[in-house]
Amino acid sequence: MSDNNLNAILLWSCPDRKGLVSRISGFLFERGGNIIDLDEHVDPGEQMFFLRVAWDMKEFSVAPDKLSEAILPLAEEYNARWTLRLSDRKRRLAIFVSKQEHCLQEIMWRRGLGEFDAEFPLIVSNHPDLRPLAERYGIPFHVFPMTKENKAAQEEKELELLGQMGIDTVILARYMQVLTPEFVRAFPNRIVNIHHSFLPAFAGANPYKQAFERGVKIIGATCHYVTDILDEGPIIEQDIVRISHKDSIDNLIRKGRDLERFVLARGLRLHLEDRVLVHGRKTVVFD
Amino acid sequence: MSDNNLNAILLWSCPDRKGLVSRISGFLFERGGNIIDLDEHVDPGEQMFFLRVAWDMKEFSVAPDKLSEAILPLAEEYNARWTLRLSDRKRRLAIFVSKQEHCLQEIMWRRGLGEFDAEFPLIVSNHPDLRPLAERYGIPFHVFPMTKENKAAQEEKELELLGQMGIDTVILARYMQVLTPEFVRAFPNRIVNIHHSFLPAFAGANPYKQAFERGVKIIGATCHYVTDILDEGPIIEQDIVRISHKDSIDNLIRKGRDLERFVLARGLRLHLEDRVLVHGRKTVVFD
Amino acid sequence: MSDNNLNAILLWSCPDRKGLVSRISGFLFERGGNIIDLDEHVDPGEQMFFLRVAWDMKEFSVAPDKLSEAILPLAEEYNARWTLRLSDRKRRLAIFVSKQEHCLQEIMWRRGLGEFDAEFPLIVSNHPDLRPLAERYGIPFHVFPMTKENKAAQEEKELELLGQMGIDTVILARYMQVLTPEFVRAFPNRIVNIHHSFLPAFAGANPYKQAFERGVKIIGATCHYVTDILDEGPIIEQDIVRISHKDSIDNLIRKGRDLERFVLARGLRLHLEDRVLVHGRKTVVFD
Amino acid sequence: MSDNNLNAILLWSCPDRKGLVSRISGFLFERGGNIIDLDEHVDPGEQMFFLRVAWDMKEFSVAPDKLSEAILPLAEEYNARWTLRLSDRKRRLAIFVSKQEHCLQEIMWRRGLGEFDAEFPLIVSNHPDLRPLAERYGIPFHVFPMTKENKAAQEEKELELLGQMGIDTVILARYMQVLTPEFVRAFPNRIVNIHHSFLPAFAGANPYKQAFERGVKIIGATCHYVTDILDEGPIIEQDIVRISHKDSIDNLIRKGRDLERFVLARGLRLHLEDRVLVHGRKTVVFD
Repeated sequence: MSDNNLNAILLWSCPDRKGLVSRISGFLFERGGNIIDLDEHVDPGEQMFFLRVAWDMKEFSVAPDKLSEAILPLAEEYNARWTLRLSDRKRRLAIFVSKQEHCLQEIMWRRGLGEFDAEFPLIVSNHPDLRPLAERYGIPFHVFPMTKENKAAQEEKELELLGQMGIDTVILARYMQVLTPEFVRAFPNRIVNIHHSFLPAFAGANPYKQAFERGVKIIGATCHYVTDILDEGPIIEQDIVRISHKDSIDNLIRKGRDLERFVLARGLRLHLEDRVLVHGRKTVVFD
Repeated sequence: MSDNNLNAILLWSCPDRKGLVSRISGFLFERGGNIIDLDEHVDPGEQMFFLRVAWDMKEFSVAPDKLSEAILPLAEEYNARWTLRLSDRKRRLAIFVSKQEHCLQEIMWRRGLGEFDAEFPLIVSNHPDLRPLAERYGIPFHVFPMTKENKAAQEEKELELLGQMGIDTVILARYMQVLTPEFVRAFPNRIVNIHHSFLPAFAGANPYKQAFERGVKIIGATCHYVTDILDEGPIIEQDIVRISHKDSIDNLIRKGRDLERFVLARGLRLHLEDRVLVHGRKTVVFD
Repeated sequence: MSDNNLNAILLWSCPDRKGLVSRISGFLFERGGNIIDLDEHVDPGEQMFFLRVAWDMKEFSVAPDKLSEAILPLAEEYNARWTLRLSDRKRRLAIFVSKQEHCLQEIMWRRGLGEFDAEFPLIVSNHPDLRPLAERYGIPFHVFPMTKENKAAQEEKELELLGQMGIDTVILARYMQVLTPEFVRAFPNRIVNIHHSFLPAFAGANPYKQAFERGVKIIGATCHYVTDILDEGPIIEQDIVRISHKDSIDNLIRKGRDLERFVLARGLRLHLEDRVLVHGRKTVVFD
Repeated sequence: MSDNNLNAILLWSCPDRKGLVSRISGFLFERGGNIIDLDEHVDPGEQMFFLRVAWDMKEFSVAPDKLSEAILPLAEEYNARWTLRLSDRKRRLAIFVSKQEHCLQEIMWRRGLGEFDAEFPLIVSNHPDLRPLAERYGIPFHVFPMTKENKAAQEEKELELLGQMGIDTVILARYMQVLTPEFVRAFPNRIVNIHHSFLPAFAGANPYKQAFERGVKIIGATCHYVTDILDEGPIIEQDIVRISHKDSIDNLIRKGRDLERFVLARGLRLHLEDRVLVHGRKTVVFD
């Protein structure tokens, strides 16, 4: 996973055809690429082919900066959607938060342990509350207060900042604002959110209160990509915890906090390791 | 759990007041009752007190047939809702099925192992398909074909039959009909259903198809009491299983089948052991 | 999974080398094989390569009966251990039982639902108790009573019978006898056992009693291949269930029974779909 | 749970006798105590009665400092083992660590959120590594380097320090030293350890390596009280996580780290809320 060699990771989806694995693995082998990891999936209903392949660039005959160019004809031949990443091109993340710290704290802590292969150049919030936490970890903290009136303008400034900083992925770590479609469009399948319910149950506001009032025996959390439609984006990861009649809403919030931390951390890790392919409303997760 | 002694089980809920445990346990002790099991719960938000107490009738000074009479004044004093059951008064169950056998099979099989302390005098279906299974286990099988037009009339006949047979609880073991409010009213909190989703997600028809299309990473099943509003009754038990992009709808159905069997069996057992108290839309489950 | 086409499934393990995926997928593509499913795993510590590939034989240029011959040179080149199965060559299973029915019942029931792509020509037992269950499902039932003295001789007769019946895999569905090394040797990695504990915890006799006395908060079940050393064979599948101080040994047995049924069913299905590769004491499971 | 009133919590175990609940709840009611929470359990095999009862002291006629004295005669009558705690008498914890920070970090973080109703006056370690973390949270950090030769002497000093600080419970948050019997004896059932395996599997050193080599499909963590016999103390809480052939030892360590954090946090919370009764090698946990 984390050796020092330069690796390339290709995510690929295209209409299914005979010989795809042979063609792609042959393409790599002919150029001296040693496959480290290969996962494929065929969706028989959709007749779609999905692939994740990682290979060692050490003896690869194509230079890293020529790699996209080399793959392009192959991708066009198969009408593929694809992304390519070199392991030394770390993703640059912007973490968006509001007032609650637990998800940010968890990400910072795991970052310190080396669990995330990424750069964390900035934290954005609509409130100043978590500035001390950001500072403790030495990450610049930007506050963009939000009102109904200034939202569009503020988001524009945020987008500008993210552009300047070369941000690749936005993490909504309990950011309590709904993003505008304009913002979402700027990061297609690159905004990772944690929702504090087992979606599609309890979408929208106050899911713990909803769960408490409905009297469910299990609560959940969902990590998903953000799309235009609230809480409807492709799901990356979910998990649950048992509750009982003894659990007050406060207990649900406490138990859910642990779920949120873990489900976001797992989903984020899957995203950073290029293990998630989006197709329509759904994901293929090669874990 | 299943000794040969005669036990009594009292389920009790009332507005919370000081001294309730002392009063009820004292009431039993004064009459020579040895408490086998006692669970209580106070809901601080609702200011409600819930109790389940089971005691040995061997040296109890009140005769079994005078027991309700003896408890009545106490219950009135505290404005309690309560049910009382003697362990030799087994619940009589009617199992309702349609065409799918797995839930019925599971119940029959566990019944054979002695897991359910109940009588199974009849099985009702809107289709003849499961008659052979019913016959193998020696249980009378009654078919009431259902159309939009005859539903009310057929249900009336069913209710008559259930009345004649002294049925206490109806189990919907994948019975693919929505019951009329009249039927539901005849068995308040005594119709146990299994829904093949993690409610409130995917209520209504075809939950596995809904789950497949939404791309969730976990599916569930829910055992609940039936009320007038479809899939909205108080939840007794839920459980889940992980799925992935590799799972076709057929796989969801296969995996879900296992969930349904187990969640229904667990919920039914809780009901038969008088471990479930309903309060509003929610349950207190003393497991 | 279960279409009507003839498919071939190759399980392959060999020392890791560059170009293996390309070579094998190329081999198939050149002969007109359409890959339906491919999974590979490289164990970096052991420097071993593991592969499962399934392909459609419809347009494959090698006839089914020449297939092994065609693969042999490739396998020798890479010093591979491999097995090949055509989807119309169903595995023939012998189920071994003693007195407890739950695992046998579960297998029979799932067989009826079409969950197992295999033939079940016989059931073997050291006791006559489950003969009625076998007969209900129309499967010949053979009793081989076992004593310390006659064990070797009885097992010899069993092996003879299994040989005559063309048995491929033996399922120990709560068969309460330890097999002799001679028997085990006759079915290398083709004897599937269910052990009623979370191995390596509570190996040997009475695991539920051991678990009860130790006061664990979780119990488990383990499906594994049988080797010479008791309860030490490669693990295929495990699962667990929570317990508490309220659970008597009888409850552990009841809850464990459900686990055993499911874990054996899942492990058996993985085996029948050729998803399990054994390497040393461990398995690679392509699920 | 956490109101501002003064509550008393009684943990009680004694040989089972008729009328125990009535007697104890009556004792409290007669003195004006309002029971907030009552849990009881009878172990029919051991003929033992276990009780946890919490009540409001506001209108209780016995003064807090006379409470033990008032309960003593009752306890002697029933030959009970019992502990009593007033909610304003917070437990004082000493956390023992070595070099790994994750368990300490988790405890500190949850403490900040108010999840633990306790005081944390000191952290003890055999290494200086975690001093900065302790300082960040403002907790005095004491280093006692350990060698085979100085262990007894160092532990004596530790015990002296713990005595001076009025420490009630010792938390071993991945403290990589085996305590001497003398130390253990000083805190009977008041040393809480986290072991990084699913005990009794993989007791002793390097459980993740053991699990990796055995090829299990699930790993676990166990929170237990420390006794004289290594990894054999009464279990408070356990949990597990699935692994596969894809997981290296490093992955097991990473996934296990999350388990350890959560299982220790849950076990510690149960201990701090006086929800754990020890009987022999086992616990009764009123959660």
